[in-house]
Amino acid sequence: MATWFLTRATATLTSSSRIIRTLGTSCNFFGKWTYETNNCGSLRLEHVGKRVCLTGWIQNSRMDQKFVVLRDGLGIVQVVLPDNGNPVEEDIERYKALPLESAVCIEGTVTKRPDGQVNRKMATGDVEVVIDKINMMSKARASLPFYVKPGNEALEELRMRHRYLDLRHLWLQSNLRLRSEVTNKMRSFLLSQDLVEVETPTLFKRTPGGAREFIVPTKQKDKFYSLVQSPQQFKQLLMVGGFNKYFQIARCYRDESGMSDRQPEFTQVDIEMAFTDAERIRGLCEALIKSSWPSSVPSLSDTDQFPKLTYAECMNNYGSDKPDLRITNSIVDLADFLKTCKSDFATSQLAEEKYVKALVFRKGDLPGGGLTKNQLQFLNTIAKEKVESKGWNAMTSYFTFDGVEIKGSLVRKLTGGDQKSMEKLKSSLSLEEGDIGVMTVSEQKTAALESLGAVRQHMIKCHMNLDPHNFKFLWVVDFPLFFPDGDKLESAHHPFTRPHEDDAHLLHDQPLKIRGQNFDLVLNGQEVGGGSMRIHDHEMQRYILEELLQEDTSLLEHLLEALSCGCPPHGGIALGLDRIIAILCKSRNIRDVIAFPKTSEGSDLMSNAPSNISDADKYFYHLK
Amino acid sequence: MATWFLTRATATLTSSSRIIRTLGTSCNFFGKWTYETNNCGSLRLEHVGKRVCLTGWIQNSRMDQKFVVLRDGLGIVQVVLPDNGNPVEEDIERYKALPLESAVCIEGTVTKRPDGQVNRKMATGDVEVVIDKINMMSKARASLPFYVKPGNEALEELRMRHRYLDLRHLWLQSNLRLRSEVTNKMRSFLLSQDLVEVETPTLFKRTPGGAREFIVPTKQKDKFYSLVQSPQQFKQLLMVGGFNKYFQIARCYRDESGMSDRQPEFTQVDIEMAFTDAERIRGLCEALIKSSWPSSVPSLSDTDQFPKLTYAECMNNYGSDKPDLRITNSIVDLADFLKTCKSDFATSQLAEEKYVKALVFRKGDLPGGGLTKNQLQFLNTIAKEKVESKGWNAMTSYFTFDGVEIKGSLVRKLTGGDQKSMEKLKSSLSLEEGDIGVMTVSEQKTAALESLGAVRQHMIKCHMNLDPHNFKFLWVVDFPLFFPDGDKLESAHHPFTRPHEDDAHLLHDQPLKIRGQNFDLVLNGQEVGGGSMRIHDHEMQRYILEELLQEDTSLLEHLLEALSCGCPPHGGIALGLDRIIAILCKSRNIRDVIAFPKTSEGSDLMSNAPSNISDADKYFYHLK
Repeated sequence: MATWFLTRATATLTSSSRIIRTLGTSCNFFGKWTYETNNCGSLRLEHVGKRVCLTGWIQNSRMDQKFVVLRDGLGIVQVVLPDNGNPVEEDIERYKALPLESAVCIEGTVTKRPDGQVNRKMATGDVEVVIDKINMMSKARASLPFYVKPGNEALEELRMRHRYLDLRHLWLQSNLRLRSEVTNKMRSFLLSQDLVEVETPTLFKRTPGGAREFIVPTKQKDKFYSLVQSPQQFKQLLMVGGFNKYFQIARCYRDESGMSDRQPEFTQVDIEMAFTDAERIRGLCEALIKSSWPSSVPSLSDTDQFPKLTYAECMNNYGSDKPDLRITNSIVDLADFLKTCKSDFATSQLAEEKYVKALVFRKGDLPGGGLTKNQLQFLNTIAKEKVESKGWNAMTSYFTFDGVEIKGSLVRKLTGGDQKSMEKLKSSLSLEEGDIGVMTVSEQKTAALESLGAVRQHMIKCHMNLDPHNFKFLWVVDFPLFFPDGDKLESAHHPFTRPHEDDAHLLHDQPLKIRGQNFDLVLNGQEVGGGSMRIHDHEMQRYILEELLQEDTSLLEHLLEALSCGCPPHGGIALGLDRIIAILCKSRNIRDVIAFPKTSEGSDLMSNAPSNISDADKYFYHLK
Repeated sequence: MATWFLTRATATLTSSSRIIRTLGTSCNFFGKWTYETNNCGSLRLEHVGKRVCLTGWIQNSRMDQKFVVLRDGLGIVQVVLPDNGNPVEEDIERYKALPLESAVCIEGTVTKRPDGQVNRKMATGDVEVVIDKINMMSKARASLPFYVKPGNEALEELRMRHRYLDLRHLWLQSNLRLRSEVTNKMRSFLLSQDLVEVETPTLFKRTPGGAREFIVPTKQKDKFYSLVQSPQQFKQLLMVGGFNKYFQIARCYRDESGMSDRQPEFTQVDIEMAFTDAERIRGLCEALIKSSWPSSVPSLSDTDQFPKLTYAECMNNYGSDKPDLRITNSIVDLADFLKTCKSDFATSQLAEEKYVKALVFRKGDLPGGGLTKNQLQFLNTIAKEKVESKGWNAMTSYFTFDGVEIKGSLVRKLTGGDQKSMEKLKSSLSLEEGDIGVMTVSEQKTAALESLGAVRQHMIKCHMNLDPHNFKFLWVVDFPLFFPDGDKLESAHHPFTRPHEDDAHLLHDQPLKIRGQNFDLVLNGQEVGGGSMRIHDHEMQRYILEELLQEDTSLLEHLLEALSCGCPPHGGIALGLDRIIAILCKSRNIRDVIAFPKTSEGSDLMSNAPSNISDADKYFYHLK
């Protein structure tokens, strides 16, 4: 059968692909579901002597030395013509006719490389495959948009336009294979814990609050589906419906074109449980992450619990609700220092309600021993941009300490050069020679903190040279439930989040003071998950939606009714799968872990989607 | 923590849900991720004496006997008040205040039921749980749309409107839990065979041919995505891209509202492999199905290969390309009988190019020993409807054999009462007393066959009382590649299907004679999968698209270009997951295996999706 098939499968109507180049006389394939017996990248000394069938693409060829490099999705191996083969000359001619990136199937024997030809840089560098047959399965055309070689990387736009070629890069192969591994380890773990995977619809109805949702016209005039931004409503309805432990690796949609590093569709690990509490949900989540850790990435400590900080602690210490804990630098409050400042500036303009904060970086933590003046000035820019983007007021300046003097415009302004204040500042910040920092003064505590938070993030990204495979997880809890939004309120998480039990009495009078029972999972400064306990009481849910958020509850009557049918306490979490995989792959962009990503504008450069549609389609969907 | 939480979690701002009814004095929950220690349905004699915490809903209560039936997603158990508890009177009052379908958490001890009270109809009927605490988590309102009890099934429309209640039915719980089990066994098997799960986009561009695709407007005027009807293009591009063994449990979309038992979104098990052949793909698929068989369903024989029939064999024998092989009845060709017929009708109107076919059902296979006259006449109707719906010409009539005479209008017409012809017919059909059948005469072979195929299907559905858990799989191969469609051709499978290698020479001159390398998987008369080898040669693909199918290839330039970059031979299959699960669940409608299904018109009766959208949204998407 297999012999028959080869002849058939490779014969086509066109002469260009009718070619079968066979160095031997017959063709046999040995693999179980596919032709190959081994992966190119898996061959080692232990395979020497084994007859193998390999499939893949020709990555390199050196005709003079009669070898090619064959690549499949898992690695490369060197393939050579037999030294005493027959007819050698003809074979070499055939070899030369193989265009790079053609798909071939070869048969041969694994051989130890001659001494001196071992390649320590290749995983398969101890061996080579001496071939007796090479079957051209599909010839690549003469000139490809780019070639698939390490270090030969084309511009991203060209790669995206020809993603089918780009995907042959072993680093992308590795990313997507790791994604498959992790996703399915997650599944296995959740199933082992008796969670049930339930598929929920993506064609639904708008959920108030949250991101913009794509709409889908139907053949009924003026009737549209919305593409769900998450399975939130469905998973809550499943809790009402008796599926106490649910999960889904769910495709979600948000129309956020123009936001960098966002995709119109993305994947989340969606979990919900009933008859439970936030602590248990976080516990499950930690166990999930530990159990699904990929084998190729440095392991997490199995025993450590993820640390937990309140929102207030995060803001006060790190100026961010998703601090990167790979560095320990935290914001110092300089209220005591301020009291020692006798300058006109300090005494005239700064009353007790002003906030003075600073963030210091130690000389020893800065690769290269320090920052240039331009780099230091740029820290000011970062802080100022943050302040301005929010419409706040704050003064910021960097400072340096040369072992003797703390230099910096704001330091000078505050101290007026007073030695006692300088000493106080030095001791407050534990400054040592070569340390640098940024100081902010503002009436608004948030402005003082977040501007330093921005500086902290910039330092990590640009100057600290941190190991991306040092993984620092963090739970952030006790967020405010609402933020002010003009004369109404806005949900900090989403409108279904349950108030903190200690604060529920504030719901009618002081809703802005209520903490929510939501929690974020942060990894190396990026939010990778968000969860909460949900409101399971229909009257409370209605009050929050109608009175506080002023939402149109007619869109949610089905949910409100469901809550009145005996809805157990429940909560859950959604993990951003793309983001987690990107971090595991040491990639800054989720496009590197998505097989066919779109641009930040939502375009597929390969197919040119989105595109025009026919008038007939427009007519059918009442768009004309 | 747990103690603290209970008090908190169940206290709300509204008096109606502030209630915690506790029969003891303290509350402790023991479960790991959720409160319960055991599932209601899992308790057996071996648990007697164990202290348990159970969560669920109150399904029944008999106050006079001081017991309730508690139900979770996995079963029910009887829960009773202690005989010598204290304070008993107050407890009973509290018990009486528990509305049915309220969510509760109880603590108690598993006890053997007193002799004479064992309930053999309940899986937990040997035991009951004597409680010391009952915690009201969430009270159901007084009057629910329907109650969740066996045999108390509401109309489908009401169930759909309140799907969150409907889902509490144990049979629906069981269906969806089986779905999770099977899906994930499939995943595990495919991963174990080194297939890689790759997520592909659903927001894409129209693929020519196939079903109507939903469109999704974007903020760019006149630019639309299409929702993919399958990952077909992407999986082929993955083959070009070096992912030789791919699978995905993929959400797909088709705008087919109005077709019964179809959903606008559905799930398929999508598989594609490169450097392989059709036989290997079918082999993988059989192994997949056998390995993912659910534990609760009668097993398939592990050793049997699925039978394989050609399209021509299926049509000739069963009048259908998806025959149900649970019965062996096949169509008999009566050409020889026709030669013996001397009637005016037979000799005048029937030339050699006419087809006479019959299908017989044995008396012993008909429950009740036979069909009524009305039922027999309805067989004619079924056959005629099929013929008329296709615009064919054919005569059909049923016949009966009473042991002496074959009665039927077409029999009479053909034989003219001639005894020799009758005898010939009797022996051709091996008729025995009580057998019945249908006979057709047509110039069109297809009409003669398919009308009988429709009768066969009707008999199976309405009269044969077959075991839905007798599973008969079948591969159908060697379909025609094209069907005629006016002056052009239409793909029988899809435009990417590779011609049969023996027929490829017919591509230019006799395309209608070409068989395709596609194959269907049929289970008990339903198509549950379709696969093919694909065209991996860009010139052949372009020729078929442009010349034969007259499609606009501008929509597919990216695929055509990809095929020229060294695309290996490849093929794959898509299994209809919803359909397979429905058959495993003995359900005729896929709605029974989907958590939140839509009507055949595409409506979600629960939320009223699809619905109106705001003018702002219309403006944003240039629809106004």
